[in-house]
Amino acid sequence: MSSSPASSPEPSTTEPSTTEPSSPEPSPSGPLTTAQLAERAGVSVATVSKVINGRPDVAPATRARVEELIRDHGHRRQKRPARAAPVLELVFRQLRDSYALKIINGVQIVARKHRLAVVLSELQGRRTPTYGWVEDVLFRRPTGVIEVFSGLTDTQSGQLRSRGIPFVLVDSGGEPDHASPSVGASNWTGGLSAAHHLIQLGHRRIAVISGPEFAMASRARVDGYRAAMDTAGVPVDPALVRVGDFQTEGGHRHAVDLLRLPDPPTAVFACNDMQALGVYRAAAEAGLRIPDDLSVVGFDDLPAAHWAFPPLTTVRQPLTEMAATAATMAITLAEGRPLAQPRVELATELVIRASTGPPRDR
Amino acid sequence: MSSSPASSPEPSTTEPSTTEPSSPEPSPSGPLTTAQLAERAGVSVATVSKVINGRPDVAPATRARVEELIRDHGHRRQKRPARAAPVLELVFRQLRDSYALKIINGVQIVARKHRLAVVLSELQGRRTPTYGWVEDVLFRRPTGVIEVFSGLTDTQSGQLRSRGIPFVLVDSGGEPDHASPSVGASNWTGGLSAAHHLIQLGHRRIAVISGPEFAMASRARVDGYRAAMDTAGVPVDPALVRVGDFQTEGGHRHAVDLLRLPDPPTAVFACNDMQALGVYRAAAEAGLRIPDDLSVVGFDDLPAAHWAFPPLTTVRQPLTEMAATAATMAITLAEGRPLAQPRVELATELVIRASTGPPRDR
Repeated sequence: MSSSPASSPEPSTTEPSTTEPSSPEPSPSGPLTTAQLAERAGVSVATVSKVINGRPDVAPATRARVEELIRDHGHRRQKRPARAAPVLELVFRQLRDSYALKIINGVQIVARKHRLAVVLSELQGRRTPTYGWVEDVLFRRPTGVIEVFSGLTDTQSGQLRSRGIPFVLVDSGGEPDHASPSVGASNWTGGLSAAHHLIQLGHRRIAVISGPEFAMASRARVDGYRAAMDTAGVPVDPALVRVGDFQTEGGHRHAVDLLRLPDPPTAVFACNDMQALGVYRAAAEAGLRIPDDLSVVGFDDLPAAHWAFPPLTTVRQPLTEMAATAATMAITLAEGRPLAQPRVELATELVIRASTGPPRDR
Repeated sequence: MSSSPASSPEPSTTEPSTTEPSSPEPSPSGPLTTAQLAERAGVSVATVSKVINGRPDVAPATRARVEELIRDHGHRRQKRPARAAPVLELVFRQLRDSYALKIINGVQIVARKHRLAVVLSELQGRRTPTYGWVEDVLFRRPTGVIEVFSGLTDTQSGQLRSRGIPFVLVDSGGEPDHASPSVGASNWTGGLSAAHHLIQLGHRRIAVISGPEFAMASRARVDGYRAAMDTAGVPVDPALVRVGDFQTEGGHRHAVDLLRLPDPPTAVFACNDMQALGVYRAAAEAGLRIPDDLSVVGFDDLPAAHWAFPPLTTVRQPLTEMAATAATMAITLAEGRPLAQPRVELATELVIRASTGPPRDR
């Protein structure tokens, strides 16, 4: 069943599964064609196509055999399929606050230019997608996949890679996978500048509320904070270092606790704006004024930072540009062109507003 | 060229355009099959299919002729096409603040259950999509389309209707199109309860900042406010009625102006939470405390209402449930089942928090 040149279309049974024209020439060393995969697996071309396209109606053992062959040898597409859906997949760990909206807007800007639809998924807090998600993505054959604050299992990235579906990580949730292209911000430098600003104002008891422990971006921010403290010769009190969750609730809970310490902090670096709003609330509840009684620095520069009262000093990360860059990278890869660099880090910038000032008891 | 029974698939040229099997029987009065459309238009079935599927390579005059036939007679699909993309289209006038996120989450809940992908579009502030958008949607053949705070032109809704693509409006931006199914909230009752609450507290100079004039939801809220004032025998001072834009900036601008009046309001009904945050900012800048010096009521109950300080009294509209209801309605229609009712209004609820109290100068 190695047949039909590309110019003579085959009858299609179900769509959009399958039946790619397959090459008659053998490729002993390189990736295998659909026909070659079928021959080696001892199944029909239609069955191989179903596996390639993530269709459900294949026996698990057969699917495993074909997946193994694809993993070991790769799959050679004759040409970009005519039916590739003009779609970018955008996957969020969690859709919350305007962080997500800035990312969506950045991807939309690029998608519109290339007339691509944006398919949005949310992992509901999971760090990697479930099996069903990959199946659906393979079925849709997107131009590319953009993962935000989340990642893929090795199996999943292997499945996408073997189908030639490029994926790019934005603000990756876990350890950066150096095999995958990614876009981030200069988090370490951002954390450094936040703490440096507070030290310059005269603060020494500076608390930090990090994001979740698995988030490398958050670790980098805290490390930047530590570097600024060390450089200035200010000891870091372990009681002032808290592990948060990037949510307002967590910021509030930690700040309530910090402000009850016998020797409370005079400043808090909240590691993101949502947590900073929780610190605002805790300060108000404790009858403290910002910045007179407590200085607060956020991270992100969401609209809420501008509209908070007092307006929040924060570290701006260019989320829209980061997302647009990731989308452009995915499209570049889909067009078969190389990336200038596989890892892009965009600069952060300290935006000084009205939530920071000298400590009262300097 | 009325041929091929459904069991014998035709060769496909380009994918995922078309070639539906077309019925040989005439349908003199009802909608026309693809073959009948082709015959009447004097073009090939492939060309008709291209028009139906929104493909670009058709001469404008031909497209217009086919569209006219479809509009006048309708198009009869033999059966739901096997290739219909398992996709819901979700269209926003503008992606801003967590209003949009709540809607997205509501649609995702239903989409996940039905294993549908969600394609997200933003009209960048336009009230109806551009031509290119419809073309793309027709090409994708979604299960359904959900329009948020936006609408379709008559031509566009006709195009979707004639292809059997159901669409549902959520919180429709313009005049409710009674021909289209829609989901909203009890805005009038919400506005009434907001104003009633303030009147009960003793306020008489109650300002209102509406949304944009085209938004019927906003008009209903203001009318509810007026009804509460009239019922209580409190005259509405025209100087206290402002047309806003549902954005924090607009709320801020109007509140600054209102607070500078010789006889300023003692309370503001901001018509949405984002505008209420702008009122908060204006009050803080004027040295006024909420609620001691100024009471504020929002609308929506976004997370920001809970986290504002003081926490915002607001009218909750169940955005997530509204979006989920719209998605379910679209799927019901796609399955060929009738809707229980074409217009669903979910109840709003006044949530009393800490931003409202008796006026100082009662």
